[in-house]
Order: sequence, then C-alpha cells, then structure tokens
Amino acid sequence: MKKIRLGMIGGGEGSFIGAVHRKAAALDGHYDLMCGAFSSDPATSRRSGELLNLAPERVYGSYTELLVTEASLPPGERMQAVAIVTPNHLHAGPVLLALQHGFHVIVDKPLALTLLQARQIAEALKGSTCKLTVTHTYAGYPMIKEARHRVASGQLGRIRKIFVEYPQGWLSTALENQQHKQASWRTNPGQAGAGAVGDIGTHAAHLAEYVSGLHITEVCAELNSVVPGRQVDDDASALLHFEGGASGVLIATQVAAGEENNVRLRVYGELGGLEWSHQHNNALIIKLAGQPEQVVRSGMSCLCAAASLATRLPAGHPEGFIEAFANIYSAFALDLLECASADHDYPSIEDGVRGMAFIEAMQRSSTSAQKWTAIEV
Amino acid sequence: MKKIRLGMIGGGEGSFIGAVHRKAAALDGHYDLMCGAFSSDPATSRRSGELLNLAPERVYGSYTELLVTEASLPPGERMQAVAIVTPNHLHAGPVLLALQHGFHVIVDKPLALTLLQARQIAEALKGSTCKLTVTHTYAGYPMIKEARHRVASGQLGRIRKIFVEYPQGWLSTALENQQHKQASWRTNPGQAGAGAVGDIGTHAAHLAEYVSGLHITEVCAELNSVVPGRQVDDDASALLHFEGGASGVLIATQVAAGEENNVRLRVYGELGGLEWSHQHNNALIIKLAGQPEQVVRSGMSCLCAAASLATRLPAGHPEGFIEAFANIYSAFALDLLECASADHDYPSIEDGVRGMAFIEAMQRSSTSAQKWTAIEV
Amino acid sequence: MKKIRLGMIGGGEGSFIGAVHRKAAALDGHYDLMCGAFSSDPATSRRSGELLNLAPERVYGSYTELLVTEASLPPGERMQAVAIVTPNHLHAGPVLLALQHGFHVIVDKPLALTLLQARQIAEALKGSTCKLTVTHTYAGYPMIKEARHRVASGQLGRIRKIFVEYPQGWLSTALENQQHKQASWRTNPGQAGAGAVGDIGTHAAHLAEYVSGLHITEVCAELNSVVPGRQVDDDASALLHFEGGASGVLIATQVAAGEENNVRLRVYGELGGLEWSHQHNNALIIKLAGQPEQVVRSGMSCLCAAASLATRLPAGHPEGFIEAFANIYSAFALDLLECASADHDYPSIEDGVRGMAFIEAMQRSSTSAQKWTAIEV
Amino acid sequence: MKKIRLGMIGGGEGSFIGAVHRKAAALDGHYDLMCGAFSSDPATSRRSGELLNLAPERVYGSYTELLVTEASLPPGERMQAVAIVTPNHLHAGPVLLALQHGFHVIVDKPLALTLLQARQIAEALKGSTCKLTVTHTYAGYPMIKEARHRVASGQLGRIRKIFVEYPQGWLSTALENQQHKQASWRTNPGQAGAGAVGDIGTHAAHLAEYVSGLHITEVCAELNSVVPGRQVDDDASALLHFEGGASGVLIATQVAAGEENNVRLRVYGELGGLEWSHQHNNALIIKLAGQPEQVVRSGMSCLCAAASLATRLPAGHPEGFIEAFANIYSAFALDLLECASADHDYPSIEDGVRGMAFIEAMQRSSTSAQKWTAIEV
Repeated sequence: MKKIRLGMIGGGEGSFIGAVHRKAAALDGHYDLMCGAFSSDPATSRRSGELLNLAPERVYGSYTELLVTEASLPPGERMQAVAIVTPNHLHAGPVLLALQHGFHVIVDKPLALTLLQARQIAEALKGSTCKLTVTHTYAGYPMIKEARHRVASGQLGRIRKIFVEYPQGWLSTALENQQHKQASWRTNPGQAGAGAVGDIGTHAAHLAEYVSGLHITEVCAELNSVVPGRQVDDDASALLHFEGGASGVLIATQVAAGEENNVRLRVYGELGGLEWSHQHNNALIIKLAGQPEQVVRSGMSCLCAAASLATRLPAGHPEGFIEAFANIYSAFALDLLECASADHDYPSIEDGVRGMAFIEAMQRSSTSAQKWTAIEV
Repeated sequence: MKKIRLGMIGGGEGSFIGAVHRKAAALDGHYDLMCGAFSSDPATSRRSGELLNLAPERVYGSYTELLVTEASLPPGERMQAVAIVTPNHLHAGPVLLALQHGFHVIVDKPLALTLLQARQIAEALKGSTCKLTVTHTYAGYPMIKEARHRVASGQLGRIRKIFVEYPQGWLSTALENQQHKQASWRTNPGQAGAGAVGDIGTHAAHLAEYVSGLHITEVCAELNSVVPGRQVDDDASALLHFEGGASGVLIATQVAAGEENNVRLRVYGELGGLEWSHQHNNALIIKLAGQPEQVVRSGMSCLCAAASLATRLPAGHPEGFIEAFANIYSAFALDLLECASADHDYPSIEDGVRGMAFIEAMQRSSTSAQKWTAIEV
Repeated sequence: MKKIRLGMIGGGEGSFIGAVHRKAAALDGHYDLMCGAFSSDPATSRRSGELLNLAPERVYGSYTELLVTEASLPPGERMQAVAIVTPNHLHAGPVLLALQHGFHVIVDKPLALTLLQARQIAEALKGSTCKLTVTHTYAGYPMIKEARHRVASGQLGRIRKIFVEYPQGWLSTALENQQHKQASWRTNPGQAGAGAVGDIGTHAAHLAEYVSGLHITEVCAELNSVVPGRQVDDDASALLHFEGGASGVLIATQVAAGEENNVRLRVYGELGGLEWSHQHNNALIIKLAGQPEQVVRSGMSCLCAAASLATRLPAGHPEGFIEAFANIYSAFALDLLECASADHDYPSIEDGVRGMAFIEAMQRSSTSAQKWTAIEV
Repeated sequence: MKKIRLGMIGGGEGSFIGAVHRKAAALDGHYDLMCGAFSSDPATSRRSGELLNLAPERVYGSYTELLVTEASLPPGERMQAVAIVTPNHLHAGPVLLALQHGFHVIVDKPLALTLLQARQIAEALKGSTCKLTVTHTYAGYPMIKEARHRVASGQLGRIRKIFVEYPQGWLSTALENQQHKQASWRTNPGQAGAGAVGDIGTHAAHLAEYVSGLHITEVCAELNSVVPGRQVDDDASALLHFEGGASGVLIATQVAAGEENNVRLRVYGELGGLEWSHQHNNALIIKLAGQPEQVVRSGMSCLCAAASLATRLPAGHPEGFIEAFANIYSAFALDLLECASADHDYPSIEDGVRGMAFIEAMQRSSTSAQKWTAIEV
C-alpha cells in the first residue's frame, strides 16, 4: 500500500506533542515523514530534522518556506499532508496557507485561537479539495468507539445523563514562572487563548458529544484561575444541557494536585449506563439495569466494527495513547488513499469548530450571573 | 460495661433501614433493644416485636404510646434512647416528643421534612439534657475519618476543589407505581419532602463538609424529575462554593440506570488530593503531587486515632456499611455512657439542620435563573 | 424468634478472634451471650465477663467449670451452644467435654491439633444429638456461595484448574520474640500444631473444595520456615490434584511482607472461569469464554438463593468479614432452632476433619522426595 | 540519527507477531524495513512485501535467498539486522545463517526448538561480531524495569518469594482442529517443540528472573495436556527454587477459559513486596511492610533511569504492548548504532539459552516421580 508523504510544522526539540504525532504517523506504516519546519528558529528546525534523519534540503526555517517550497516540488515527491503541532495561536495561519497550497491538514486541538478563526478555516476548507482532521485523541480509543456504538445501537435507551471529567494536577503550582515551556505558552492568553477549558475542556466536551451522539446546547459554567497570578483559567466546571433533553456535568481542571490525566466518561440512558476511564483505556464497563456489570475489553470478539478496526492486538494485549492517536492518523490516511475500508472515523472540521464554540460559551457563561449560556456555533 | 436500653420507632416488617439500625446497635454490644413502636399499624408492630423476641408488653401501637409509657417505667428499666427510622414526615413529631420525655434520640437522615422543623428540633434540644444524632452513615466509615484527618492535618494544603457524587439507578423507572414500599414514600412529596436531593444529596453534602471541614456556602443547582410523572426530583447536580474559596461539584442522581450506590468523594488541596469510593470503602487513596499514589487501608498502623477507633478488625479484613453505621451508634453510646474514650464523633444536630438548609437551597436554586443561591442555616 | 443462649471458651482480653465471634453472634440477633470461661486465668476471665456485662455468676474460671456448671442449670436457663475460640491445642478437650454434656459446638478452625483428635471428635459427635460447626469463615461470604452455585450449576463446565492463594505478611519478622500474643502461640508447635499451613492453608484448602465441590486427593508440597529460628512453617506452596482430574495450585504464606490478608480464588472449567478476592469480597468475576467479563455483586437480583440469604443489604452496600462470620453463626442458629429456612450451609465436622488431614498430608509431602502425597481422611 | 536497515524472515499475511515486530520497529524511528522473506511461499511473500510498500526486488522467496542476496549488496544499502518471526522450528536455521553472513539478529522467543540448538546459536554468536536479542516482551515494560530496579536497589530486602503466572484461555478448546493457523503450529510438537511451557512459560520464567535478578535452579513441575487429543502441553504449574534460597510458584496455562493474557508477577523480600499485572501494565504496586501501599505509574518523576528511558509519554498517558516491544527494538538499535545512551537493556543470548533450558527441565520434571529437577544450562 502507498504511503502518505507527511510534513510537520512545529514539534521540534522539547515539544511533547510533536513526538506523539510522529510516532502515531509511523506506527501503522501509512506515512513517511519527509519534511518539516520544526521551529520558528531555523537552527532548531535544522537540528530537529537531523535527529529525524530527514534530507537537509527538506528541513525548513519557517512554515511559509515549507509550504511554498514543497508546493513547488514534483507531484510524486512533494509533501501530501502536513501535521500542524504549534501552539494554538499558530494554528490558523499555517492551516489556511496549507489549504491554499493544496495540502491536507492534520492539526492539533483546539482548532484555533478563536471561534472566528475556526469559522475562517471551515470556510476555506469548504472551497478546497483538501481534507482536514483535528486530533481529538480520545475519539481514537477503541473502547470509546465501542461506547459510541453501544449508545447509537440503543442498548442504553434514550440518554439521560452524561458526566465527563478531566482532572490534571500538573498546573497546581505556577510552573509558568519556572521556565517550563509547556506551562508557559499554555497559560499565556495570547498563545493559548483559553486555559484548562481550551486544553482539556475541549477534549472532555468532544468525548461527551462523540460517544453520546448529542450536541451540548447550553452550559452553566464556572472558570477559575486557582493559582495566584495565573493569566488564564486553570479550572472549569459546568452543568450541561444536551439536545434532546439529556443533562450532565463537565469537569476540567489542571489544579487537581496529584492527578495525572485521568479522563473519565459516564453516560446513562433509560436502560443502563457505561463508564470509561483513561487509566483503564482498554476496558469499557457496561452497566445494564438488573444485570451484572459487564467489562468489555479491546480485542474481544464482541466488539463493533469500528472498535475492532481500531485495535491492533489480540485481547489481553494493552494498547494506549499512541495507538489511539495513530487511529486518527490511520483513518485519515486511508481516507486520503481512498481505501475501501476507510470509515472516515476521525474528528472533522465540524468537531474543531464546535470545540471553539464550546470554549467561548464557557468563558461567557463564567462571567455571567445568568444560569445558562447557549453554545453558538 | 453497661448497655443502653434502646427503643425504636418505625422499622417494622419490610423496612430496610430499621433492620440496619438494629444490626448497627447490636454489633458492638452497647445497646439492648428493649421496646418499640415498629409500625403505625398495631398488629404489624406486634408481629415485628415478636420476631425480635421482645417482651410483648413493650411493643407499642404508636410512638406516642411508646414514649409516654416508657417514660412512666422505673429508671433502671425504662428505655434510655430511641431510634427513629420512620419516613421523613414522621421525624419531627417523634423527635420532639422524645426530647420532651427525656429520651436521647438517634434519627435517620434527613433530620426532618423541612428546615423549619429542623430548627424547632434544634431549639428543643438546646433546652434539654438529651443528646441527639442523625445517621449520616458515610461519616462512620473509618477511611472517611482518615480522610478528614488528612485534610485537617494540612497534608493536602489549603483545599481548592471538592467533588462528591452519589449515583444510584434504582429509581430509573416509575417504581412508585409498582407497589414498591420504599419507592412510594420516597417519591411522595408529602412524606419525603425532597427526592434525590434529600435522600442522597444530603449524604453527599454531609460527606463533603465532614471531610473538608468546610461549609458549603452557595449552590448553583439543577434538579430534574427525569422519570415522567414523578412528583419529586430524582436527579440533582450542582456547582458548589465552600467557605474559604474552595469550589466543587455535587452529583446526586437516582436515575443512573445500572448504578448501585457508588458514593465517591475527591478533595484536592494545594499539595495533593484524596479519593474514596463506597465500593472500595476500606481504602483511601492519597495522591500527593510528585509522589507515588498511596493506598491506605483500614487496619493499617498508620491510621489516625479516629479511624483506628472506628475499625474492629486487623488490616485485610473488610468491614462495611453496617460497621460504619455501628460506628455512629457506638460513638453515641459511649458518649451517653460518659466513657472516657468517647470522641463525640457522630453527626450532630448542626449537621442535621445544615442538611435541611442544603435541601431547601438546592430547591430554590433549581427554579432560579440566577447562578448562585446561598445556603441559609 | 427465640434466641440461642451462647457461652464462650477463650476469647478474653487481647484475643482477636473471640471478639469476632461475639460480634458475629450478635449481628443478626440469633444469640444471647450468657456465660463464658474467657481465660484460663480466672481473674482475666472475670474482667472479660464484666466488660461484656455478663452476670458475674456465669463467668467461669475454667472450661470444665463452665461446662459442668451450665449443664446443671435448669433447661430454660442454661447455655445451649458454646463457642470455642482457644488456641488449637485447646480445641479437642473442650469440644469433647461440651458434646459429652450435651452442648452444641462452634469451634474455630483448624478443628484440632492433630488428625487423630479430629477423628475422635467426629466419633463423639456421631454418638451425640449435638451439632457442631467449624468457622471456615470464607465459606460464609455471599459471593463465595454464588461461586459455588455457578460451579455446581455447570456454568463453567467440567472443572479443570483451581488456583487458591492466601498471602499474609504479618509473620515476616520474628514477631514471636516480641511478646506478640498471637504470634507466640501460632508459631509454637505445641499450641498451634502447624504454622501457615494450619492457620491459613486450611482456609485456602476449604475454600477451594467448597467452591469447586471437589476434594483434594493429592498434594505436592513445600513447607518452609523462612524466618530464621521459627519453630513452625510460615510458608507453604503446593501443586494439587483434585478428584475427577482437575489440578491446581495452593499458596499460603505468612512472609509475603507487605501483604495483609488477600485470599484469592480462581476456578476454571471447560467453558469459563471465576475469580474472587477477599479485598473485593462483594464482587465475583465471571469470565465465560468468548463473552465479556461479568462482575456480579452482592445484593444483585441475579444471585442464587444461598448468596441472597447470606446478604443483608441492598446492592451497593458493602458487607465484610464479620457478616461472613455471622452467616455461619446464623445458619447454625437456624438449624438449632429447626427453622424451616435453615439451609445447613455451615462448615461441618467433615470439613473439620478434612482440614486436619490436609495439614498432615502437606507436612508429610514437604519432607518427602516423592512428588505426590495422598490426603488420607 | 541514522536508522538501521531491517529485514524480516516470516511475518507474512495472517501472522500476528510479524505485524507486532514491524510496528515495534517503526514506532521510534530507529529502523527502516527494507526487505523480507515473509513466507516460505514466494507468492505470499511477494504480496506481503507489496502491502508493506517495499521495493519488489528486495522481497524474497526464502530466507536463504534473503540472507545470501542481501549480503551481496553494497554496504550502504544492504540489510543490517534481521528480525526472525517464524515458528520455533524455523528459528535456528535462519539465525545461524544470518550470523554467518554478518547480520545482527532479532529473534522471537523461544530462541529455538531445542536446548541443543540454542547452545549452537550461542556458540556461533561467540565467534561473530554480530549482536542478537530475543524478544522477551515483558522485560520491555517500563514498570518491569522499575520493579527490577526496586529489587536490585535492595528496597525489598533479601528476596524470599516469587510468584509468576501467565493464564490464557484461547486454547481451551481444540482450536488446532479448526484451521486456526496460530493454534495449529503452536500445538504441533515438530513446529513448536513445547506447548504452554514454551510459548508462555518462558515469558513467565524470564520475567521472574529479570525482575528478581535470580536464576531459577530447580523446578518441580506438572505439565498437562488438558484438551483431549492435544499433542503438546497446554497447562504447566511448578514449584520453583531460585539461587540464594528464594522459592516460588510458576503457572502457565492456556486452558484457563475466559482469560485473555493476564501475566502477573509478585516478588516478596524481607521488607516488602511488589506486584505487577499485564492488565494494568502502567502501574507497579509496592507494598512495604508497615507502610501504605504505593502505586507507581509510568511517567512519574520518581522512576529509575531505565524505566524513564523506556517511557515515551508524560504520566497519565498509557503505553502498552507495542511500546514494550519497541523498547527492546530501540535498545537494540541504540546498541547497534553505538549510541552513548544505549543501556544494552534487551534480552540477551543467555536469556534465550536459559529459556530453552527451562523448557527442557520442566518437561523432564513433569515425567519424573522425583520432586525436584535441576535446570541445566
């Protein structure tokens, strides 16, 4: 099978998410990383490219140089898709330029710095033949796909309650004052836009919507900057209204000291509920009223097609975060390759725009004395 | 050691909580159940007394008869304390009459049908030499006492976030239309006052306050009657403000189909967090930032005095709900017996009044378009 | 319902298991503790009786005095059953004398010091109208009864493999040299007979046989005295042969430093397996080949009759060790009271004798160079 | 950084482990798969190479053709290392020929069909400049490296007990009679050599030795062919003696119906124990006597250097089987590349030979009436 020639913007030395994107792209053999502009500092970019064993002439000093030069290469050689893994304020620019030059785009979440930018990207995409995905990682987990299937198949009955939470503890102290690269940009309003609600709240919201198949319509939120002096929110809680009458709760906090990254989702319908947690990502707990609790595990023969496709190993062989990430990469590749088995099950531009609308509704709600604030896509 | 002569109001055949109270009273040998008015139906009361091997002359047909007659018995013979385990609308009457006749009172939660009644009880107690406890069971668990100790000792630093949840599924259908005794009175506004928020929301709120040592000051709540036709709320969620600036979330729902009774508490401070769940009641998870997660178990030598006192067995021997309940009973007995080791660690009238104030604030908030509603004790 | 008048031999101040027996007897209200010889030291016995609020004239200075005096009391007053909770070398004497005087017997495990004594007790019982039970506690857990039912009902198919383990750590150091009462007698060959294999190995073996419904026929064992200077085994492992061709492994060790009391059983048949651990005693995991794992919990409506009878609380309300113990006490009481609902589901004299035969086979095997040693009942 | 040019023998369409090897090699970007002889059927080999997007001229019809032809290519082009992922009876031939032609070797476990072959490979390797690793996957898990470090650092004190188990259920029925490729060769004595003891018993034994740092010296084993008609063992249990006086138990069974692949290891020393299970591979439980249980997770800052090196993601981001596998691949690559950070922490030829010696000792023990059988390397 052909491989997609991939380029990368951002993700140089010291980047966490850049390495994840590269491993995710490599895992299933659907991509060849050919080129990149790994840093806005040309020397750093060059050094990063060297470490990756890339041809020096295809390591660029800026994203513009990358996009323009690659566009000028012969079709059989030039980059086909570009992964954009820069801080949020550097999403919209490269994405729009990439689309303009005909490159498919994989962009880290949240899609942009503002809802306005997100809408511009959506507009640009509409007028192009390119495809785009946003790496809402959790939608890549096989057991999340199984959860979505269980809800969609009606096994839980009409959905009534959705609880989603994303507690982290790494920003419990003012790490941004200690030369911590991640903390610095993520707590800088100009680079990150929002804090916890943008970085992890969007993951939580996407997860709730992806599994339930329901859109959040209104939020009643409180955003806090718990750590003194912090410029963005580091803690968010909200009551949620979903379309169709379901309600729920969302928690996204980065000051739950001692917590790692323990995303957890619960969905309850008339007939039963389901539960998933990141710490036990290969299991999905199904609780049907009046029946023993069931634990479904990845690799089991009873899984739905989407979950099976997203699983590489037999039951009992744990997969993890990189594999979930790779599922988004591979689904996108198979779509680009026009593979018959492509199920297009990767986060779309709509998901990206909804994420930005969610952030802005949460922010508006938090400063409002009114209970409910609508999400306006 | 002397035993307390105990009577009971309510708790006849078919009662769930009456049997729990009796086993809790029996477990540690601090009480002798001597008498009771187990039902408003005299025949049922008699039959219940017979099953309990009580002297027929001390089984009464009404709570008034019980209290008046027992008060007339010789001091060395008559009941000393009475357990009141009737539906909520039948709490205030017996409690007030018991206090009037000089009996100590153990009353099931919530304390009363209304905040007004609760205040009347508090007033009556103030003018009496009697003591009273409210069976907020979860405060009886040794690991909850340990949790309280960890917070109080400052191990977590200043408290920032408190998440408490109490998901049940047993009222996911209209059980009250199926001759289900428990469901009938608990969904009847005249007998229960409130629904989920009263039955289990008060447990959750008490647990949060007991462990954190902080009072909830404001709630932003949504109460739902999810099951069509239900007369009370069966689902409650709230954002919480605590004194001192902490914030949190409370979930209490009886329509989480498939859930049993999985109370769960998490408290996070500047330095770390702790987690407890009812399903693993003998464990307390401590997560200090930058350190391995610790699992403390009942019976371990590192436990605080209150937790050790509340544990009967060596480490590795699970205790449960009845033992937690018995811890309240035994702490109350030791206080009545003026035992030197009594630590008075049982829920007080203040806890009872606060529970009613919580219920009414949640109800007011739910119908308000304003975000925040104060708890007014 | 009538109560059984109970006496106790042993279990005075400082005893662990005596208090457990008393709480187990009290929990369900089927026994009244009336009398006891709580210690071979009359002063200690008296003080223990006082703490228990017993009539001074029914607190005795020796077991002989207890049995002889109580036998002389009027029928409606005298003790009906006696709980024997002394060290192992003081089991056979009181048991035989109690039977001789017509008292029913509840005796802690192992039944006796030697297989010979056990056979004598069995013989004596055969010629008497009295009943006897041995407190193999783990058989009292509701989920163990459910496990037994699942095997018996054929859900797992023909049984192939049985793994049982009982790791403790409390004897990892020479506690017996530090005035530790429990450690002292349990490591004294004259008082305990055997070490780990007797104290906890018998629990493990009984559990395996109770759930599987199969007798162990042969063992291939290694017993170690891991702690230098220890007079009895503190560590035992064995390969097992069961009747009908199943095989398995048994581990019973008291030097697994850091472990509490984590009994664990797994049984596999042609169609699936089940798993239970003491730490999660209210759950039973069922793993049927090709199906999702099921978690059955106490209180669920799907439980078998024996498990339901052995459960006091609705699903989601944990019960523990004392409740399991009380299940043996209550089943025995209901049998003595000739109650129609009595299911006789308590460990019998046969279980007691088999336990002693198991100990002696393990000891013989350990010193043999031959692989397999038969259990000779 | 340069990449290793990798070839593969075996692992064509339908192979489970071939795909795992390829993903493991791809994950960290240290290898480029350049060539292969993926099947003994040239057409299958060609199709497999095509799917992998390899140059057709470097897809070979036999392993001999691969090794001979690649050896003739220019140094900068030819394969540098070869992964051998054929059934066991096809290990020794290709390994010896690869070494002869100067290729580094990655070979799946067990190393060979017989101990004799293993010794021949060891001999050949000694006389060569090539390196070799055997993919004992479990040694690649970061938390297993942490466990090894904890033991080596003396935190548990002198080791006393080691329990290792590997229960699977997939061979609970005669799958080999149903055209099941994996089951067919794995139960064929001519292709697999041994059954459960070879396939998974060697994993368990290696894990025990790797973590404890102690060699197994003697086994007392029972091997069964539980499924009627099966030609190899499908179930093994053994008592173990380790050097230095520790003892333990090993279970490796493929007829634990309902089990997936739940490897579990426990090691106890004088001061405490540790526990790891495959199902929760990112956690290591440390139980020090008299202290709360600790749960160490991958990504935590407290991890030892080897565990940290073997972890790609921050705490709270699960890694799994492929990552563990990749850790062996990457450590081997870094050694081949003479990278300064190479820690040579990959299974060696000695591990491979010991695995074969273990298999043969288990087989000898099983048919012996004597209790103990020495492992003869």
